[in-house]
Amino acid sequence: MIILADCSTRMRSIVSFYFCYLLCLCLGIACVVFVSIWNSQWRGGFAWDGSALQFNWHPVLMVTGLVVLYGNGAVLYRIPLTWGQNKLPWKLLHAGVMLLALLCSILGLCAVFDFHHTNSTPNLYSLHSWIGICTTALFTTQWVMGLAGFLLPWSPMSFRKLLKPAHVWMGGCILILSIVSCISGINEKLFFALKGTTNGTMPYGNLPPEALVANSLGVLIVAFGLVVLKILSNQKWQRPEPQSEDLGYSPLLQDDS
Amino acid sequence: MIILADCSTRMRSIVSFYFCYLLCLCLGIACVVFVSIWNSQWRGGFAWDGSALQFNWHPVLMVTGLVVLYGNGAVLYRIPLTWGQNKLPWKLLHAGVMLLALLCSILGLCAVFDFHHTNSTPNLYSLHSWIGICTTALFTTQWVMGLAGFLLPWSPMSFRKLLKPAHVWMGGCILILSIVSCISGINEKLFFALKGTTNGTMPYGNLPPEALVANSLGVLIVAFGLVVLKILSNQKWQRPEPQSEDLGYSPLLQDDS
Repeated sequence: MIILADCSTRMRSIVSFYFCYLLCLCLGIACVVFVSIWNSQWRGGFAWDGSALQFNWHPVLMVTGLVVLYGNGAVLYRIPLTWGQNKLPWKLLHAGVMLLALLCSILGLCAVFDFHHTNSTPNLYSLHSWIGICTTALFTTQWVMGLAGFLLPWSPMSFRKLLKPAHVWMGGCILILSIVSCISGINEKLFFALKGTTNGTMPYGNLPPEALVANSLGVLIVAFGLVVLKILSNQKWQRPEPQSEDLGYSPLLQDDS
Repeated sequence: MIILADCSTRMRSIVSFYFCYLLCLCLGIACVVFVSIWNSQWRGGFAWDGSALQFNWHPVLMVTGLVVLYGNGAVLYRIPLTWGQNKLPWKLLHAGVMLLALLCSILGLCAVFDFHHTNSTPNLYSLHSWIGICTTALFTTQWVMGLAGFLLPWSPMSFRKLLKPAHVWMGGCILILSIVSCISGINEKLFFALKGTTNGTMPYGNLPPEALVANSLGVLIVAFGLVVLKILSNQKWQRPEPQSEDLGYSPLLQDDS
């Protein structure tokens, strides 16, 4: 009777995980679709020529890298299907998705720095840019520390034990900072772009279709971030770590038996 | 030997809690000081007459209520000094601080709605306002549900058990949303206020003293929020709940023996 009840509780936990995971995937896809539609449909599309079309890469790459890929990379270990499997391929996939996310973010920063340079606009003065640059710097540090601590075979066990809670905690902080950066950036861009009579657009205050799409993108980003943080914070969804890992573990050997 | 090691681990945990708590108090005070200085020194001070001086209440009340009071109210239960004491006074203090935070936020919203009304400016069009109004609505729901679930004596135990994890999770989400709202709001205000030649100010891009103070306020808000979330997420700092509470608990009786 107790075994049956335990089984039912575990099943409920797994089903609710997959519900959240599906939500996370759908919201992530919706974010990428919305940010792409916004910049191709209303901002004129993309180019790499120092014009406003180059700036359009900035929101697309930052939302795709720093939010969607980052969030999906963070929850990989939580998928129950992977728990019984060798951890190394998942670790490599986690590092790979995070590297892709980091490269997107750096390219997104290059797009805006180069656009500013061409148009003699100062860099790094707004609060959005302060938070954004700190987020990318923290993310780079986190990726390098993760590589050094969890993937290089000569990293000592004591360093790994010290690093793991800090890595998990910093991972959540970076996601929160990414959301803050994206929302402040979208808000700023809409005030710049929808000035009404000044630049011949419908003003932001009239909520034209572009504003509705970009505001909805902001809401989707926040919802995606909260679902990812929900998955990361649920103790029941953490990958069970085998004792062997605590005793003496090499990331290049099979660590989950 | 084991008892000594246990004692030392516990002491380290308590000391690191108080370090974080002190940091949280200092950052909270710094946030209130910075937002007040910004609005009194560079925005011309305060009034309630529909002018720009009325708008200045908005950032001050939102940062004080939705971030500083809210964050401090959230970590109250985590203070180890209170763990051995009757929970009811702390529960009432938690509800009281949160009510004060809610009233500040509502007054902060009234300030901006009334300012918009006087100046025929549309309401609730920007992404900042969408996230901000959702945050305050969620906070109001959270406070009412908390009162109904944890303070009214006729609330059934089954409802309490169901509500508690949702209350804790929603509490963290509201804080994240508050930070997102404040950062996007400060960023927006600085672009409105520091337009350069258009309104005779130094442009935001030149980082005048006002921009430095307000940007630093944004950084302080983010740091405060992350410290509060660190305190809330640490399992070791959670108030130990007595068995009696799980079995049949009345909030108007002494529930911690």
